[in-house]
Amino acid sequence: MPQEKKGRKKEMPIPKGVVARLPIYFRHLTELQKLGTERLSSAQLGEDLDLTAAQIRSDLSYFGSFGQQGYGYNVSELLKQVQNIIGLDRTYSMVLVGAGNLGKAIGGYEAFREKGFQIKAIFDVDPLLIGNYHTGVIIKPFSELPDYLQKNKTDIGIIATPKEASQEVCQVLAAGGVSSIWNFSPAQLTVPDGVLIEHIHLTDSLLRLVFRINEQRKQFV
Amino acid sequence: MPQEKKGRKKEMPIPKGVVARLPIYFRHLTELQKLGTERLSSAQLGEDLDLTAAQIRSDLSYFGSFGQQGYGYNVSELLKQVQNIIGLDRTYSMVLVGAGNLGKAIGGYEAFREKGFQIKAIFDVDPLLIGNYHTGVIIKPFSELPDYLQKNKTDIGIIATPKEASQEVCQVLAAGGVSSIWNFSPAQLTVPDGVLIEHIHLTDSLLRLVFRINEQRKQFV
Repeated sequence: MPQEKKGRKKEMPIPKGVVARLPIYFRHLTELQKLGTERLSSAQLGEDLDLTAAQIRSDLSYFGSFGQQGYGYNVSELLKQVQNIIGLDRTYSMVLVGAGNLGKAIGGYEAFREKGFQIKAIFDVDPLLIGNYHTGVIIKPFSELPDYLQKNKTDIGIIATPKEASQEVCQVLAAGGVSSIWNFSPAQLTVPDGVLIEHIHLTDSLLRLVFRINEQRKQFV
Repeated sequence: MPQEKKGRKKEMPIPKGVVARLPIYFRHLTELQKLGTERLSSAQLGEDLDLTAAQIRSDLSYFGSFGQQGYGYNVSELLKQVQNIIGLDRTYSMVLVGAGNLGKAIGGYEAFREKGFQIKAIFDVDPLLIGNYHTGVIIKPFSELPDYLQKNKTDIGIIATPKEASQEVCQVLAAGGVSSIWNFSPAQLTVPDGVLIEHIHLTDSLLRLVFRINEQRKQFV
């Protein structure tokens, strides 16, 4: 199937594996651009990311990007394509529910703001937090969330509440027309059809580390 | 290759894909056990986890676990095997470096303690934090970390510092004999040979969500 030099064909869906690697390409290319690297070969990119050169070329073909013999890939051009595919060519308005330690950490995360993610409002039920400002955003009572969502188009709802509260928060967000939820609570949330949800499972990462610790230990037994 | 009914053959390495799914099996089986489910079929498990029954059976064969015709899998037995494979049949001592919002959130995360992960000490450079207690653990000056590590065997070092400080923290942990690092800072850290590192890339998860948002949007265009 012929491919355009710029941008990928809408008709060509990107396989899950490639999607999962998009952020990795994004991070690495951003780093290379910061370092002033102008171009690199698929072999080098593969080495950096622990992927085969063939794998890299196959992945990048989905981005409608083709290296040139003896030149390789143009870093900033490739980065721009990856950004556009991910959807970083626009900004996203977010609300954060839960202003505890985790919520504060998320709200203060520089990297998001840089990429066009704006936390427009923060909600909590704790009277001691309500009315305070966090990174310039006032913490409102959770009871005001439905009204806020009615008045303010919101792309992403972030859930940083205790497990027990998260399902209710999820429902209020969905009922308010928020079609994408980023969930930091350890609860398995059920969302209405058409609502996207992405979970951060801190424990998964820790368990993978622990597995590797024990695999390594076995080698020395 | 013949397999034992219990436990897996040491000689049989577990493929990356299966390893990546271990935490998912762990979470789901834990949930099922809480709900009092005693047994389930590979078909049901596949449906729950969005995998084919064949995929499930193949995965579980690495755990040395075999369903019985017309019975399926015993939930608690299967969970126990998954726990053992991951390495949750022992406890892990951890130190946490960085007692800001993120560090406090990690330190307060119930789910870890339940699974045998114990944060034994917390370190920071901020005089306003040093000397305070967080979830019963005192916050010590970062300068005392090398001495602490010399006196206290530590399995895992958690880095929850700003990006700028994380590489130095990583070196101090490794120099102190910590062979596994769980990094929450957005920095790409270099570790000495033999030191395992697992990164939590909050942004990756957000970017995957954003990609899905835009894929969904295209369908409605």
